[in-house]
Amino acid sequence: MYFNTSNTAPRDNYQLLTGAVVPRPIAWVSTLSEDGVANLAPYSFFTVASCKPPVLCVVQVNPRDRAEKDTLSNLQSTRECVVNIVSHVLVDAMNTSCADYPPQVDEFEKSGLRKSLSKAVAAPGVEEALVRFECALREIKPIGEGPMAGTMMLLDVLGVEVNEAALRDGKIAHDLLDAVGKLGGDGYCTTRSHFDLKRPQV
Amino acid sequence: MYFNTSNTAPRDNYQLLTGAVVPRPIAWVSTLSEDGVANLAPYSFFTVASCKPPVLCVVQVNPRDRAEKDTLSNLQSTRECVVNIVSHVLVDAMNTSCADYPPQVDEFEKSGLRKSLSKAVAAPGVEEALVRFECALREIKPIGEGPMAGTMMLLDVLGVEVNEAALRDGKIAHDLLDAVGKLGGDGYCTTRSHFDLKRPQV
Repeated sequence: MYFNTSNTAPRDNYQLLTGAVVPRPIAWVSTLSEDGVANLAPYSFFTVASCKPPVLCVVQVNPRDRAEKDTLSNLQSTRECVVNIVSHVLVDAMNTSCADYPPQVDEFEKSGLRKSLSKAVAAPGVEEALVRFECALREIKPIGEGPMAGTMMLLDVLGVEVNEAALRDGKIAHDLLDAVGKLGGDGYCTTRSHFDLKRPQV
Repeated sequence: MYFNTSNTAPRDNYQLLTGAVVPRPIAWVSTLSEDGVANLAPYSFFTVASCKPPVLCVVQVNPRDRAEKDTLSNLQSTRECVVNIVSHVLVDAMNTSCADYPPQVDEFEKSGLRKSLSKAVAAPGVEEALVRFECALREIKPIGEGPMAGTMMLLDVLGVEVNEAALRDGKIAHDLLDAVGKLGGDGYCTTRSHFDLKRPQV
């Protein structure tokens, strides 16, 4: 079946893209508003944009009814955030944090999570997360325009807090991190069904 | 353990980022050179950048020994590619295609894959892939500079070919697609260990 995207609605594009670009890692982003209210929200359009310097890329799909979500608005005013990684044990808290609360609500409190003190930024991290990337806003880049367009947030990684519980021989071990990924619709996957493949040498 | 990235080497950043930003979807990108030689290579720094218009984002980590890989060089000259999705049954072919062959080598032949005729672009897709995004280059955006920096390829999706075998009720079903994801090191995961979570209503 062929979908010519000059004829598809943004909602169809969303379903095709989120159904096929899987499994997606989850950036669980914590920010502070100018008034000091903490915000926490998960984003699954998330990847690495550079290793020198280390830069993360998180994309917001613009909501239909307003210009931006709290994360983006906080990031624009304070220019800092923490990207927390979601281990399987944290999925219920993560899901609670993605409800559409008004800006004055602190999702840490709603989700029963503790705030960790960050070293390089004022924004708190999720204490329970095994990996926390402390980031400064590098650039906001709009891709497209209007509802369902993307707003790309490029984030300079200033520091990385890794809980010893996720480390084996000084490296992050995926079985210890036990991260979850996003699939289409309401679907999530674990990283528990895994295998190794050595890259071939020519 | 805290890593201050003003003191970490690009290689350390790579390990931290690829170890923690998991599971990552895989863009298996096919291109044609100006001379008509087909190229095929997997990239796991891959996400959705917009749904209106539909845009994909694929990041190359710049190699140490030369400016660019064949995919980027082909994309710069022909401005077209196909992003194929890797189902579990295709992992060995995908791994064969990621060896570092010279530009005149056709990875389809090396991997024993058939070329599919694309509708919107000249670049062939992987016939065996259940989803193929036919794309035109929208923008190349460098992030950082030199070896281990990123080169972001933003791709306008012109059309999407979805094999009926991946569809249930007109939507891509993740159990039918059976995509694989990338973990740190030589690790991969399947999407077979999965669960559903309904987003809460406030």
